[in-house]
Amino acid sequence: MSETDLPDGADVDLGPLPRLLGYALRRAQLAVFQDFHRVFADVDIRPAQFSVLTVLRHTPGLRQSQVSEALGIKRTNFVALFDTLEARGLARRERVADDRRAFALYLTEEGAGLLGRMQALLVAHEKHFIDRIGADGRETLLALLHRLSD
Amino acid sequence: MSETDLPDGADVDLGPLPRLLGYALRRAQLAVFQDFHRVFADVDIRPAQFSVLTVLRHTPGLRQSQVSEALGIKRTNFVALFDTLEARGLARRERVADDRRAFALYLTEEGAGLLGRMQALLVAHEKHFIDRIGADGRETLLALLHRLSD
Repeated sequence: MSETDLPDGADVDLGPLPRLLGYALRRAQLAVFQDFHRVFADVDIRPAQFSVLTVLRHTPGLRQSQVSEALGIKRTNFVALFDTLEARGLARRERVADDRRAFALYLTEEGAGLLGRMQALLVAHEKHFIDRIGADGRETLLALLHRLSD
Repeated sequence: MSETDLPDGADVDLGPLPRLLGYALRRAQLAVFQDFHRVFADVDIRPAQFSVLTVLRHTPGLRQSQVSEALGIKRTNFVALFDTLEARGLARRERVADDRRAFALYLTEEGAGLLGRMQALLVAHEKHFIDRIGADGRETLLALLHRLSD
């Protein structure tokens, strides 16, 4: 077959995909995460790391399993993620006295400081998308998303 | 510290996370994909595989780079994904005459047949979430999601 008989990129027909909730959710999530990576590149923090730091600020002393479950992060992924935060001095594990296998998790002062400094980045990141869909659109979207995941 | 001093799972405070678009999108996407995995377990098809088969049905002969770009799949991930589809006899690569490095991609008859049989699963999967947010909610959601990812 000659190359000229083949479709070019502009011809790509996605068929029913854009009408499927899973597909549309995944594309929107990737777009938002891509912006997150761009905005947070200087501080080298990824979305899941940001979530873990945020949860530990609001509930210090949670066990690993509690944080990973609350955030829907697989346990093996969570351990690697937390190892990175610990190696960077942003969070720490503390052995639980009554349970030798368990660790309680905490932010370090450095982690709390970084989280505070990241709030301005977070606002810039969110604003990028609020500009696209409006404040009302955002409220509508959040309500619908929560009904899907509850 | 005694175990009883530590917060239990019910105390997890996610702080501002549920109000963040990226977090809410990710949780909703995971919920929908989890249902997809459940519904499509018998045919052993994952969401990205479904997307690739669908695109090839609608635009046969696309190059690898065109499909991976159209779907937002990283090139290395795409190659592994397509290897699996090819090994299962659901799709095939064909060398492009004018470009020895390029492959044009096609569904096989078996892939087309499977895609046809999966339509009923797809309807059941989507219905699960339309029941939660209503047909109007779905339209609103799709429109907002497309405005985020466009």
